Amino acid sequence: MPSVLILNGPNLNLLGTRQPEVYGTTTLADVEQQSVLHGKTLGFEITCFQSNHEGALIDQIHAARQTYDAIVLNAGAYTHTSVALMDAIASVDLPVVEVHLSNIHARESFRHHSYIAPVAIGQICGFGLKGYILALDAISDHLGTQ
Amino acid sequence: MPSVLILNGPNLNLLGTRQPEVYGTTTLADVEQQSVLHGKTLGFEITCFQSNHEGALIDQIHAARQTYDAIVLNAGAYTHTSVALMDAIASVDLPVVEVHLSNIHARESFRHHSYIAPVAIGQICGFGLKGYILALDAISDHLGTQ
Amino acid sequence: MPSVLILNGPNLNLLGTRQPEVYGTTTLADVEQQSVLHGKTLGFEITCFQSNHEGALIDQIHAARQTYDAIVLNAGAYTHTSVALMDAIASVDLPVVEVHLSNIHARESFRHHSYIAPVAIGQICGFGLKGYILALDAISDHLGTQ
Amino acid sequence: MPSVLILNGPNLNLLGTRQPEVYGTTTLADVEQQSVLHGKTLGFEITCFQSNHEGALIDQIHAARQTYDAIVLNAGAYTHTSVALMDAIASVDLPVVEVHLSNIHARESFRHHSYIAPVAIGQICGFGLKGYILALDAISDHLGTQ
Amino acid sequence: MPSVLILNGPNLNLLGTRQPEVYGTTTLADVEQQSVLHGKTLGFEITCFQSNHEGALIDQIHAARQTYDAIVLNAGAYTHTSVALMDAIASVDLPVVEVHLSNIHARESFRHHSYIAPVAIGQICGFGLKGYILALDAISDHLGTQ
Amino acid sequence: MPSVLILNGPNLNLLGTRQPEVYGTTTLADVEQQSVLHGKTLGFEITCFQSNHEGALIDQIHAARQTYDAIVLNAGAYTHTSVALMDAIASVDLPVVEVHLSNIHARESFRHHSYIAPVAIGQICGFGLKGYILALDAISDHLGTQ
Amino acid sequence: MPSVLILNGPNLNLLGTRQPEVYGTTTLADVEQQSVLHGKTLGFEITCFQSNHEGALIDQIHAARQTYDAIVLNAGAYTHTSVALMDAIASVDLPVVEVHLSNIHARESFRHHSYIAPVAIGQICGFGLKGYILALDAISDHLGTQ
Amino acid sequence: MPSVLILNGPNLNLLGTRQPEVYGTTTLADVEQQSVLHGKTLGFEITCFQSNHEGALIDQIHAARQTYDAIVLNAGAYTHTSVALMDAIASVDLPVVEVHLSNIHARESFRHHSYIAPVAIGQICGFGLKGYILALDAISDHLGTQ
Amino acid sequence: MPSVLILNGPNLNLLGTRQPEVYGTTTLADVEQQSVLHGKTLGFEITCFQSNHEGALIDQIHAARQTYDAIVLNAGAYTHTSVALMDAIASVDLPVVEVHLSNIHARESFRHHSYIAPVAIGQICGFGLKGYILALDAISDHLGTQ
Amino acid sequence: MPSVLILNGPNLNLLGTRQPEVYGTTTLADVEQQSVLHGKTLGFEITCFQSNHEGALIDQIHAARQTYDAIVLNAGAYTHTSVALMDAIASVDLPVVEVHLSNIHARESFRHHSYIAPVAIGQICGFGLKGYILALDAISDHLGTQ
Amino acid sequence: MPSVLILNGPNLNLLGTRQPEVYGTTTLADVEQQSVLHGKTLGFEITCFQSNHEGALIDQIHAARQTYDAIVLNAGAYTHTSVALMDAIASVDLPVVEVHLSNIHARESFRHHSYIAPVAIGQICGFGLKGYILALDAISDHLGTQ
Amino acid sequence: MPSVLILNGPNLNLLGTRQPEVYGTTTLADVEQQSVLHGKTLGFEITCFQSNHEGALIDQIHAARQTYDAIVLNAGAYTHTSVALMDAIASVDLPVVEVHLSNIHARESFRHHSYIAPVAIGQICGFGLKGYILALDAISDHLGTQ
Repeated sequence: MPSVLILNGPNLNLLGTRQPEVYGTTTLADVEQQSVLHGKTLGFEITCFQSNHEGALIDQIHAARQTYDAIVLNAGAYTHTSVALMDAIASVDLPVVEVHLSNIHARESFRHHSYIAPVAIGQICGFGLKGYILALDAISDHLGTQ
Repeated sequence: MPSVLILNGPNLNLLGTRQPEVYGTTTLADVEQQSVLHGKTLGFEITCFQSNHEGALIDQIHAARQTYDAIVLNAGAYTHTSVALMDAIASVDLPVVEVHLSNIHARESFRHHSYIAPVAIGQICGFGLKGYILALDAISDHLGTQ
Repeated sequence: MPSVLILNGPNLNLLGTRQPEVYGTTTLADVEQQSVLHGKTLGFEITCFQSNHEGALIDQIHAARQTYDAIVLNAGAYTHTSVALMDAIASVDLPVVEVHLSNIHARESFRHHSYIAPVAIGQICGFGLKGYILALDAISDHLGTQ
Repeated sequence: MPSVLILNGPNLNLLGTRQPEVYGTTTLADVEQQSVLHGKTLGFEITCFQSNHEGALIDQIHAARQTYDAIVLNAGAYTHTSVALMDAIASVDLPVVEVHLSNIHARESFRHHSYIAPVAIGQICGFGLKGYILALDAISDHLGTQ
Repeated sequence: MPSVLILNGPNLNLLGTRQPEVYGTTTLADVEQQSVLHGKTLGFEITCFQSNHEGALIDQIHAARQTYDAIVLNAGAYTHTSVALMDAIASVDLPVVEVHLSNIHARESFRHHSYIAPVAIGQICGFGLKGYILALDAISDHLGTQ
Repeated sequence: MPSVLILNGPNLNLLGTRQPEVYGTTTLADVEQQSVLHGKTLGFEITCFQSNHEGALIDQIHAARQTYDAIVLNAGAYTHTSVALMDAIASVDLPVVEVHLSNIHARESFRHHSYIAPVAIGQICGFGLKGYILALDAISDHLGTQ
Repeated sequence: MPSVLILNGPNLNLLGTRQPEVYGTTTLADVEQQSVLHGKTLGFEITCFQSNHEGALIDQIHAARQTYDAIVLNAGAYTHTSVALMDAIASVDLPVVEVHLSNIHARESFRHHSYIAPVAIGQICGFGLKGYILALDAISDHLGTQ
Repeated sequence: MPSVLILNGPNLNLLGTRQPEVYGTTTLADVEQQSVLHGKTLGFEITCFQSNHEGALIDQIHAARQTYDAIVLNAGAYTHTSVALMDAIASVDLPVVEVHLSNIHARESFRHHSYIAPVAIGQICGFGLKGYILALDAISDHLGTQ
Repeated sequence: MPSVLILNGPNLNLLGTRQPEVYGTTTLADVEQQSVLHGKTLGFEITCFQSNHEGALIDQIHAARQTYDAIVLNAGAYTHTSVALMDAIASVDLPVVEVHLSNIHARESFRHHSYIAPVAIGQICGFGLKGYILALDAISDHLGTQ
Repeated sequence: MPSVLILNGPNLNLLGTRQPEVYGTTTLADVEQQSVLHGKTLGFEITCFQSNHEGALIDQIHAARQTYDAIVLNAGAYTHTSVALMDAIASVDLPVVEVHLSNIHARESFRHHSYIAPVAIGQICGFGLKGYILALDAISDHLGTQ
Repeated sequence: MPSVLILNGPNLNLLGTRQPEVYGTTTLADVEQQSVLHGKTLGFEITCFQSNHEGALIDQIHAARQTYDAIVLNAGAYTHTSVALMDAIASVDLPVVEVHLSNIHARESFRHHSYIAPVAIGQICGFGLKGYILALDAISDHLGTQ
Repeated sequence: MPSVLILNGPNLNLLGTRQPEVYGTTTLADVEQQSVLHGKTLGFEITCFQSNHEGALIDQIHAARQTYDAIVLNAGAYTHTSVALMDAIASVDLPVVEVHLSNIHARESFRHHSYIAPVAIGQICGFGLKGYILALDAISDHLGTQ
């Protein structure tokens, strides 16, 4: 049974309480709960982790190498600034799907660039919580077609 | 019964015959057939259109205004150069999901910028044919939650 | 009796139905009708043409060489991206007045640059339909003072 | 009876004596006289002011707030460098039409950017003296349609 | 007997009638006639096509895949703006030689960059009609040495 | 009684021991002590926190949401690199005053840009320890005038 | 008894009458009156001067050299464009505190750069009228600790 | 007897009292006196003018058109920011020699660019007061060789 | 007996398990063991520390101030993004030698810039594990020649 | 009988021994021998010169002024860096054809710009040894049509 | 008796024979002869050297260290590209005056930057041969006032 | 017995006599003597060569192909400007170690980029003469581990 790590980065713990005009009222608990449920329908064992610490996210990615088959990563603002996260993904041999709640390409220009993208399979952004569901579907497709 | 236009831009007619190391062997016919099938499971009536002509794509978007409930758009290379397509989308009141077969953010830097993104709901890239399926799911979610 | 071609580019066919907060409710038919009327008061025979196809606009400019005395050109979004239109104007020996409905210099920065400007007599922008009337007056003045 | 201020910036006092290959032989007196005449046909009371001093132009714009209904502004070279003029216009509640004798978008690249444009209704450039006449027409249209 | 497509882009139909100080008085018919003649001496069957429509050029390149052994391409202004043409060439498996009548590297800086170059064998520019002759020679050499 | 969090970022723990020619000999303890004292005169309850960890600063800002009425933030070097801190401030509904000991606009150019500024009320820099006192005054004024 | 010059630049004379959503309803007279009052509590003799003329501001700074002990300078839009003001400050040996009513770092990017900053002690922005009071406090601290 | 205007811009009135490590202790009076003396040896009638006002400098250049045979111009900081001064020089038909006391190309990068240079005969910088003497020699040579 | 801290940053814990085509198969344990051994031959007491947390690296550098005589620092990806690490080094008075396993100047352009370099004695890159040995030699030389 | 100088720049002496995947196995002797042979068929007297010294290439160009009717120039890497070579060509009145073995526009971006191009008739690149043959044909055509 | 080296760089040997519309008809021999004559009136012993070789110019500057009291340097095109010449001047302890025949700041933008300027006393450009005479005067003044 | 070429570029002949605050008092003879000595301890036969001529350095690199096993290269200022040296190294099949006496990444920004780096094994900078010793050690390690 494939296992998938859902990794959320800085400020995502405040989801639903923060800038609802941009991110909606869904909480991180909602995201994680629905992802776990959807994972079950795909035959995935899902684990969720969130941290505001860049280093903690890197540690989790390293640890994932021996525990998970894939990662759904919403690196939040670190997406745009962290070469270290990019290198962390490159250093573990796992498929990563990049997710963003909002359409980052429609916001400030410094949010258009992603250090995660060059080391991820693909990117899904702009669909809120639904993006995580789509990411799990993409991983299911990816693992199935390899 | 909602209707969705799947609009493919330049060079996508050669899909499956072209640079298989980047885009795989799936043909445009495969993409369209599977999209229609998946659309049925979502209760969508799907129509497909492809053109290498920027103007023809604009004409289709204009025409879609009175015929469709949403658009899945893979504008191909025009994604990066066409302000006219951007304006066409802005001028019709329809939800658009942007799709790319490859992960454009992991390719040449001139492919990182999208004129479509600021006027689309969201972007899905890197998942090949699967991206169209995910885009239809995103539209289904979008139309259902409005 | 001098003849003038009024050439409108991409998305201008949707005028009045599109982003009224930017462009107002005047339709392209209104623009063309009032231009023809105003042309009469100036002693001009006016012909109008609109296309969403860059190539069709170039074809019209080429054809104008033997038929018209001047061109009023609103190239829409192609203003900012089309070197081919610039070259088309340079290759026919006709005075061209560049018109924009909105004040392009007050919008997104990629709309500040015009490939038409270096080969036009002058530019009029920000006055909606009235801009076409002013452009015809400018052409009348230009033809009269040559 | 609406009153309009025609405000000319640096070096325009030398009009007709300066670089005739760019600006022609019309003098500032000609511009002002013909503008006053044309204003009469539109039912406008026209006042003209020219200065080479950025501060004096700002002072005039401030004073215009209580005296005029609109401003025709040719800020000359200050167009490209003066944030202070931009702020002055933003701080008075008057419609401003930006005029340039030459087609600034066809000259050196540092003349393509205008600090006036974002706070003006529209821009007219490239038509010499005629540009002032067109600007008055544009103001007439603007005041009439508000 | 190898067949070669000579593909000319926007505004080249006006050759000889346009900006003679840059391009000379040779017409497109001259270019095509002499290319056909020279092709015969090389044992080539030459076909010529010109369009001002980016999409039509892409369509021709696609069609060339099954009909021609090589392409001589003068994409005109689309050289500098069309990622779609670049992708079209990359998607057919044919040697392409890029030709320009004028020395594009000696003109405005926006003409220095070519989207065609990275997918062409080589570039020849600055030699007018002669450039097409040289391009055919280069193709002859290329096909002979493969 | 309003409560204010004084949050200091990386390397500020070494204050007074580090580059005295730039920052002077005042220690962080001095800063905090005098801020607490001055806070008392304003009727504020002051809490101080310092960390070299970006994530820990984000955690504190999140926690502040339910505990404090305002934040004085000297994000140190993270000012210039942390989109995550910017988002953290945007996600809590608290007034933030940005403080810097040195005049960052008079130092290396990479210190001129602040990701904190767009989400702060205002910025005070260049006054050493005194800047914290002024920031508290600014908060007092801000809270009083809301 | 130390004397301080409060120097206000272009458009600040319209304070309170201009863009209240950005600057509030406080007038320049209010700013000056409250600054004088606050100056008294600090033992300062305050003089106020405002001009829309860059040259007049430079003249005042020069004259200040023999008359004042410090300057509070809100150079308005000249902050971003005037090397001459920068040089004027550098050429007199007086401490200058830079003040802005709005948070310039949260506005258009051309307002982020200050030519005043490199020659000022520090910068205070975003606190409206209160910024002047804080600037006087900063000067008091600066003069006291020299 | 040829007449020459020596025009000094902002802050040069403080010469000798300002940043002596950059500009030395020579005063403006010294510069003017020695220039007049040296002018006499060249058979020139020299007039000197200094202003901190950009507009006043422009006014002087305009007035010079009918009075002087050449101008020695040290525009100070306006060198780097004033398109209006550039246009003023272009609009009078007089040879201008650009002088700077310090070597502007060895200072901050924003002092490397001169708007005066494209409309001046030549530039002399880095030689302090001596630069004015050399400029007069250059004018003498220029007038003699015309 | 001089003591040296060998400080390794993000992802270096995975050394030998990660991208062997770039970094080889040597593990971090190998690096540390051989560094300790080589340190003994130089008379150094070596301590090693690795963390993926930027803040933890800063904490270690601060702590080093009172314990070590020099630092060998491979900041990994933080090299290119961390102003905070740069400030940390500047705030302790210790010689730092910057090491990179790969030749960062031969990789992606965002790896060419180092925030560590301006505050380090020197940089060694491209020699894998050997780089640490060379860094210790460089420190030995540096401490011996001070 | 026209004489032509074939001038090869740095590293071209190693042709055939160097990076064969980019330049093939043809040696410089091959290039020169075949050029001489082809020159004969065109009625040209060909002389060949190669140097790794920028100054020596300039000296040759100067000397060519009195000896040759045209130059075929492959300036190698100096193409991208040498303003001095550009000036050398501009200072002799000879037609120059620029040749490159590889398609420089398809390689690293710093090889896309040529200082030779603005002073050459045209550029031929990407055809290996054949490029020299084409260049001689172009010169023959050029000399014949002058 | 002070000795001065007049050092001329690439292409200056062709002076008078090259682009007379930019540089006039004066030859290098004229420049050198008149410089020697003028040097005599200043009590200087003048030596002249010209080379098209960057290395030879560097060698001369090195040799000058023990032989000359000052250098007049016209580095020609190397001015804009040679860091090595810049370092050569910095490595000898001699005053250098930079001369250019044409006004480099009024030509192509790549000629506006000088690597010589930061290590020279000053720059004189635009005055043709006269520039060398002025440079010698500047050196005379410089040596006299040290 | 492996042989190593130590190649020094422009201005390094003046080592020890030049800018001692940057480069110290060690002479080139010292560098070469100690390198030879250290080479002996590594079993290397060392040859040294220095030139200020870019072409001479290229010639040496070419000649090294058949004579040496490795090169230690300090290209001095040519490091930052010479594509020709980069190509020379790429065209010989020898390991090159790049050395700089000073820490180039801590100096002017134009010294941060190296054309040598992409074709060298690694870079060592900032350690003065010791850098050459370390480079030889790196070569010894490199040759031993191949």
